[in-house]
Amino acid sequence: MDKLHEECGVFGIYDAQISNLSNQVYFGLVALQHRGQESAGIAIHSGKAINYHKGMGLVQEVFDKDKLLGLDGDIAIGHVRYSTTGESHLSNAQPLVVRFRGGNIALAHNGNLINALEIRNEMEKSGTIFQTSIDSEVIANLIATEYDGDIKEAVLKAVRQVKGAYGLVIIFNDTLIGVRDPNGLRPLVLGKTRGGYVLSSETAALDVVGATFERDIQKGEIVLINQEGCHVETFDDTGRKAICAFEYVYFARPDSIMDGRNIYQTRHKAGEILAEEHPVEADIVIAVPDSGIPAAIGFAKASGIPYDVGLIKNKYMGRTFIQPDPSLRDLSVRLKLNVLRDNIRGKRLVLIDDSIVRGTTSKRIISMLREAGATEVHVRVSSPPVTHSCYFGIDTPSKRQLVGSSMSVEEISSLIGADSLGYISIDGLVEAIGKGYERLCVACFNGQYPMEVPMSGTKYVFEKM
Amino acid sequence: MDKLHEECGVFGIYDAQISNLSNQVYFGLVALQHRGQESAGIAIHSGKAINYHKGMGLVQEVFDKDKLLGLDGDIAIGHVRYSTTGESHLSNAQPLVVRFRGGNIALAHNGNLINALEIRNEMEKSGTIFQTSIDSEVIANLIATEYDGDIKEAVLKAVRQVKGAYGLVIIFNDTLIGVRDPNGLRPLVLGKTRGGYVLSSETAALDVVGATFERDIQKGEIVLINQEGCHVETFDDTGRKAICAFEYVYFARPDSIMDGRNIYQTRHKAGEILAEEHPVEADIVIAVPDSGIPAAIGFAKASGIPYDVGLIKNKYMGRTFIQPDPSLRDLSVRLKLNVLRDNIRGKRLVLIDDSIVRGTTSKRIISMLREAGATEVHVRVSSPPVTHSCYFGIDTPSKRQLVGSSMSVEEISSLIGADSLGYISIDGLVEAIGKGYERLCVACFNGQYPMEVPMSGTKYVFEKM
Amino acid sequence: MDKLHEECGVFGIYDAQISNLSNQVYFGLVALQHRGQESAGIAIHSGKAINYHKGMGLVQEVFDKDKLLGLDGDIAIGHVRYSTTGESHLSNAQPLVVRFRGGNIALAHNGNLINALEIRNEMEKSGTIFQTSIDSEVIANLIATEYDGDIKEAVLKAVRQVKGAYGLVIIFNDTLIGVRDPNGLRPLVLGKTRGGYVLSSETAALDVVGATFERDIQKGEIVLINQEGCHVETFDDTGRKAICAFEYVYFARPDSIMDGRNIYQTRHKAGEILAEEHPVEADIVIAVPDSGIPAAIGFAKASGIPYDVGLIKNKYMGRTFIQPDPSLRDLSVRLKLNVLRDNIRGKRLVLIDDSIVRGTTSKRIISMLREAGATEVHVRVSSPPVTHSCYFGIDTPSKRQLVGSSMSVEEISSLIGADSLGYISIDGLVEAIGKGYERLCVACFNGQYPMEVPMSGTKYVFEKM
Amino acid sequence: MDKLHEECGVFGIYDAQISNLSNQVYFGLVALQHRGQESAGIAIHSGKAINYHKGMGLVQEVFDKDKLLGLDGDIAIGHVRYSTTGESHLSNAQPLVVRFRGGNIALAHNGNLINALEIRNEMEKSGTIFQTSIDSEVIANLIATEYDGDIKEAVLKAVRQVKGAYGLVIIFNDTLIGVRDPNGLRPLVLGKTRGGYVLSSETAALDVVGATFERDIQKGEIVLINQEGCHVETFDDTGRKAICAFEYVYFARPDSIMDGRNIYQTRHKAGEILAEEHPVEADIVIAVPDSGIPAAIGFAKASGIPYDVGLIKNKYMGRTFIQPDPSLRDLSVRLKLNVLRDNIRGKRLVLIDDSIVRGTTSKRIISMLREAGATEVHVRVSSPPVTHSCYFGIDTPSKRQLVGSSMSVEEISSLIGADSLGYISIDGLVEAIGKGYERLCVACFNGQYPMEVPMSGTKYVFEKM
Repeated sequence: MDKLHEECGVFGIYDAQISNLSNQVYFGLVALQHRGQESAGIAIHSGKAINYHKGMGLVQEVFDKDKLLGLDGDIAIGHVRYSTTGESHLSNAQPLVVRFRGGNIALAHNGNLINALEIRNEMEKSGTIFQTSIDSEVIANLIATEYDGDIKEAVLKAVRQVKGAYGLVIIFNDTLIGVRDPNGLRPLVLGKTRGGYVLSSETAALDVVGATFERDIQKGEIVLINQEGCHVETFDDTGRKAICAFEYVYFARPDSIMDGRNIYQTRHKAGEILAEEHPVEADIVIAVPDSGIPAAIGFAKASGIPYDVGLIKNKYMGRTFIQPDPSLRDLSVRLKLNVLRDNIRGKRLVLIDDSIVRGTTSKRIISMLREAGATEVHVRVSSPPVTHSCYFGIDTPSKRQLVGSSMSVEEISSLIGADSLGYISIDGLVEAIGKGYERLCVACFNGQYPMEVPMSGTKYVFEKM
Repeated sequence: MDKLHEECGVFGIYDAQISNLSNQVYFGLVALQHRGQESAGIAIHSGKAINYHKGMGLVQEVFDKDKLLGLDGDIAIGHVRYSTTGESHLSNAQPLVVRFRGGNIALAHNGNLINALEIRNEMEKSGTIFQTSIDSEVIANLIATEYDGDIKEAVLKAVRQVKGAYGLVIIFNDTLIGVRDPNGLRPLVLGKTRGGYVLSSETAALDVVGATFERDIQKGEIVLINQEGCHVETFDDTGRKAICAFEYVYFARPDSIMDGRNIYQTRHKAGEILAEEHPVEADIVIAVPDSGIPAAIGFAKASGIPYDVGLIKNKYMGRTFIQPDPSLRDLSVRLKLNVLRDNIRGKRLVLIDDSIVRGTTSKRIISMLREAGATEVHVRVSSPPVTHSCYFGIDTPSKRQLVGSSMSVEEISSLIGADSLGYISIDGLVEAIGKGYERLCVACFNGQYPMEVPMSGTKYVFEKM
Repeated sequence: MDKLHEECGVFGIYDAQISNLSNQVYFGLVALQHRGQESAGIAIHSGKAINYHKGMGLVQEVFDKDKLLGLDGDIAIGHVRYSTTGESHLSNAQPLVVRFRGGNIALAHNGNLINALEIRNEMEKSGTIFQTSIDSEVIANLIATEYDGDIKEAVLKAVRQVKGAYGLVIIFNDTLIGVRDPNGLRPLVLGKTRGGYVLSSETAALDVVGATFERDIQKGEIVLINQEGCHVETFDDTGRKAICAFEYVYFARPDSIMDGRNIYQTRHKAGEILAEEHPVEADIVIAVPDSGIPAAIGFAKASGIPYDVGLIKNKYMGRTFIQPDPSLRDLSVRLKLNVLRDNIRGKRLVLIDDSIVRGTTSKRIISMLREAGATEVHVRVSSPPVTHSCYFGIDTPSKRQLVGSSMSVEEISSLIGADSLGYISIDGLVEAIGKGYERLCVACFNGQYPMEVPMSGTKYVFEKM
Repeated sequence: MDKLHEECGVFGIYDAQISNLSNQVYFGLVALQHRGQESAGIAIHSGKAINYHKGMGLVQEVFDKDKLLGLDGDIAIGHVRYSTTGESHLSNAQPLVVRFRGGNIALAHNGNLINALEIRNEMEKSGTIFQTSIDSEVIANLIATEYDGDIKEAVLKAVRQVKGAYGLVIIFNDTLIGVRDPNGLRPLVLGKTRGGYVLSSETAALDVVGATFERDIQKGEIVLINQEGCHVETFDDTGRKAICAFEYVYFARPDSIMDGRNIYQTRHKAGEILAEEHPVEADIVIAVPDSGIPAAIGFAKASGIPYDVGLIKNKYMGRTFIQPDPSLRDLSVRLKLNVLRDNIRGKRLVLIDDSIVRGTTSKRIISMLREAGATEVHVRVSSPPVTHSCYFGIDTPSKRQLVGSSMSVEEISSLIGADSLGYISIDGLVEAIGKGYERLCVACFNGQYPMEVPMSGTKYVFEKM
């Protein structure tokens, strides 16, 4: 549906009082399913060994009752993954589980390293072999190489060598570990259960397993959870805070709270600001469901134009839908969305979308709305134009496909067939998130990356995850 | 989720110009998937024979590319089914396909017959055997028995013997037939493609296959579509119009237009009337998603209390979710819905639901809202209390479980833990639908059935469909 | 592998003392799997209803532990089916289960009716509908039509109307029924368990479930088993005994005893007679495995030429083997059979096969043997040339493909590339079976059918089973 | 069925002229399926990368047409695996595919290393991580570590560090490599196709793909096949030849030729010698099918007692057969084998088996034979008693379960209920194989291992393969 894609969600739990701990991870992963639908996996530590199961597909497709029953223990982690390329192979699913002289490691990673290939080349020179194409294997190898009896030190020595974005959950023998990168690009939160602790990419997964929110893991922090309790410390305070603005715009669940800000309210506020920045006379405000709804409600509130439903989503339209005959133009959009004709006929519409990447879907939606009798369609977008590639775990298409990078707003408006088009400004989005530029990464909108990134044109990743 | 259940959707198409006609049925059935998720089937007429494929599960699970390629022809029908009992057996899936002296019949049925068992007993006395437990088999047997060279007469003689609710689509050799019962209890619409015609339970499926809406098949009408074109005639004008009010309240898709009324607008209007009938002071109006949203928006508009989002649905929570441990109370609701804490904390809420059947889910939702900080929860329901069983194709639980039939509004309010509870009146609902009592069946709210129904206590159906 | 194909096996059990009765049917069907690999099914009577499960594939593919656990009761029947045409559809799998005014019937049929189409047409004229293309449905319909309160009479009135070959097992409410056609063309045996009785196409299935052989059901007999015990009676003694000779030649398991004669010993004896009828000088006798082995051992004994192994079968080569590239000639045979080079190099071979249908496989085998160094290959066949079609349940190819019907022995010998070719005479085969012409059907060898058969050229069956 | 188990088969092919090269590997693996039924895998080199697919189950279950089409290239290897322990995990399936600084390696291994754990511990000390529990990963890691630009040297440096049994096929960038251990414990042969070369554990797989036998890879040899042709050299000539005698007794296919000796003829000869060593008066010689047949035929020839069939195997009894109720004693044997009563009733039998491991199956078979009327059952075994564990890739049960190690022949005879019992002597077996003690490993019969093996009681392997 012409959106940018998040590329992973992680979940971890340490709780010796819960039987069937893998059930909790399962519920947590379902709550994080929006962060990745390609593969899912759970690894669980029971006594000495780490058992695991991974598979291609949704959490509910990969796991069934028997598979979960076969995974018992008292420390568990899980992962959902989205993959951008043809490299969607089971061997790249996570968690990655390895054995080495120091014991067993299971590792799940959300984010992207920008120097993984470099480190990998270095390690290969000293004879290390790799069995996957994911950069998590680099981290696991580094931990194994650096291990000298002290778990925390091994992990810290490893992560200090990598650059980029990471929210990590790791089982290292009898300890559950969480690490967030020094810029805090990828989210990671800590929750509390009656008998232990939970780590998760988003708070929504805490709610599902009945955990209470404890705190965000802050940029450059490591958390170690074991029999002695939960210990958090800062391992790197050199980076500036730079949480990904797109988490607020699109990726995260509206019911999650990220670094203190509720996602829904951010989007609602963005809608309000958008109404101020790009006012328009119209009869109703409608949203591209589901992700445009909060901003549409905000826009309606600020503008005084009533919010109503103009597009209906077919909730049974799954991922594997059989591709329609090319002769049936626009069918793929029409199968997913239908216009509520009686609501929009003869009306001037404000259509709120959270982002426009290639513009193709917008064009079809606007055309459907006009066919159904809309007299005007004014598009308002609750994020600024995407102009730059992401190096930190978001699958951005090539610049050529990013309309925001190659066309003016007027050109885009004309391309998609809108009567007018307005994007929220970067300032407006930053205000909506309520954190200030100094705590956000808005590089995909302005090219100001929180760290030096590889020269454009370099093939800088071997696989994002 | 504590709702009444629709029990079938039907779709038919006659178009010799479309290659891969079964694809169209597939798309149509996906658009009707909300009307039944237990089994799906497609039958297609090619030259002399009728081929078919049926299976348990969603349309997308039952069919894949190869299965559809194997189904070619120029007349096709399809069916999605919901089953209420343990009799969910593949042999009960539809379409039912039979061969007899007059040729081949495929038949798909939405609705429920109240005299099927009676007819069946009668036919068995003369030696007929039955291989399924669905009442469609009775209709097929009647058609075969009555056939004497004239297709239309055979179908009419058959349907004149049955009583109850039916929207039928039938392939009879080279003719596509649609029949709607003399009260019009179940919906059926006619659409036009470039090269032929479409029949469907709802207009939303017309939109998906690019057909234009032609007309509703009226109560007591039969439509025959073949080489000679499309012929509609009335076979029974004795019944009063009595379309099922619950189609408007809950079953149909909001983007469908049923007997001239858009479903969304009906629900929106019900919300407005509800606001007038049961006003309340509150800070925001929220909906139980997704079905409560239109009425909530209507309620907000009429009351002046702003509409906002209070509950988030996890769209990845599929049907086969692994049942949580009983020790985790309320988990099944929590896995499907999460509260948007920051939106409702400290607020007085109006919570709009479209119906309350058993009350269990309402109770859990209200409890979640209070835990999240709502100071008051006023429940408003956009349909009247369900007090009577349906005999026409809706799966109503036993009266003991219907809180509307055994408890006063105050008792229900107390049961679910609301601060106040208001149901729309039957008058209000009838006004919202805009048709008048004389054209609706509201028997589940007031017990006034459009035809004589079996004595309560009688086991009157052998299988609904 | 160029063989004629048997077309079904049936099994039935009545035993109230065995828990998990469906397990017994499962074991029995696996023992009868050689009689049909296309579909399998079990129906079981529990109290009032008959539950069943059917599927395409081997018994072990169709059933698993859960499926069997779901099938409980005290009377059960099962069926394995081979299908000759494209009509291999799940709806044609057996047992057929129907409900009618008299109760419930489940029916499984081995054999073929020659007047099924005629009866079917007749029944359709009076309005009966058919949902399958199997002739068992005719029998079930006849039973239902004829039923007037007396189970036995209904079954007898039904079977007296049909002509052809049948071994039937039927559950009719609380009674297990077996019927064998008046010529005894298809086999059926009765066994005894500790708490009840077993019916089976072959004795080998009795051994597997620990039942003792009681007696053959004789031609024209019906057996009724219920609470009052086991009752056998003759319903038709007009037909001459005519058990299918091919059961002895190829179809039945070597460890089965059919009408008093052990199959293995018949084949062994045929080998001995073959050696007398077509003596040859050679170094070793080898068999086309597995079915040619008994006759080869018999031939070796009678001729004094040592028996040895010359061809090895790959037992892991399943039914669904991926078809090799046409460029790899002869691969399909080579994948199934390999030559034991060191055993045959430089030797004169007698190659024993039980039958030659098209000759294609024989040709490839002989060519492989010569390539491996055999100096002479003398083919001896333990059945006479197949010259006529079977109307009683065997899938014979068209006459054009039957080399025995269109070519002389010399021509066939030359076609397959043998140094010499000898078939056992019909007299010889009859002697080996030890029953006399008057008790056998050898129509496929001599055209003398035990009853009038349809004119050649007539499409006489709608589906064999 | 109470047999020792081989633990793997390998296959490799280098041929740029064959399209669909993975088909050839598929056919080859099916021909080697008897060497391992737990998992199967194919890796194929195409240009730069190595693609692969692995799965649990038979070759025909793991691969289908689409999977094979997706695997294209010009060098391919495959593996079938049997696993002895609970560690039957997909991640342990082979080929193992890794990437390292020198390129890509795929590796498949038949055999068992006795110092893998030792090397692994050593490598882990320098930081290497392991993702599987198979010793192939040790070899792959060694190759990667030792690589310095020269493929052959890297492989030789690696294999010189390992001790034990191995037949390896390796893809190393554009070269196909085969290696056989310095004792030649595990077999490996070289074949020639029109456009290239084939490596295989057994010659039977050469026949299937139409390759001609070129030579055995000798003990301590490495073969490198690439654009420059096929190069064989000896890398270690210090070991004495010691091919596993059990390959001749039971593991290999009868149609394979191993180190110059046809397997069938070896077994036939063993039967002859057995007849001389343990003569007995009897009426017929029968075999435990299928593996006992060659020796039974040999025994019959040498003794003059006629060979006949006494036990029939149910070829449809698959691996996943539903376990019978424990109340049905002996069912598991009876489901697989049935007695040919008429052949053995009243007779004195010689029953030939190729080995007795635990004795349980023998006991049941003898009991079945007596029930069926055998008057005497004289058991003759064509291998000596197994008294010692194997360290080289054969799954031997613990000594406690090996009746040959803890009981005298008389005790075993009494245990299994035989009238007499005779094992071939080790001398006799060595004579049958025709190679002399100095070229065989008969350690499982006499404890004289061809190399120093770990102290008994040591847990010496982490996983056999």
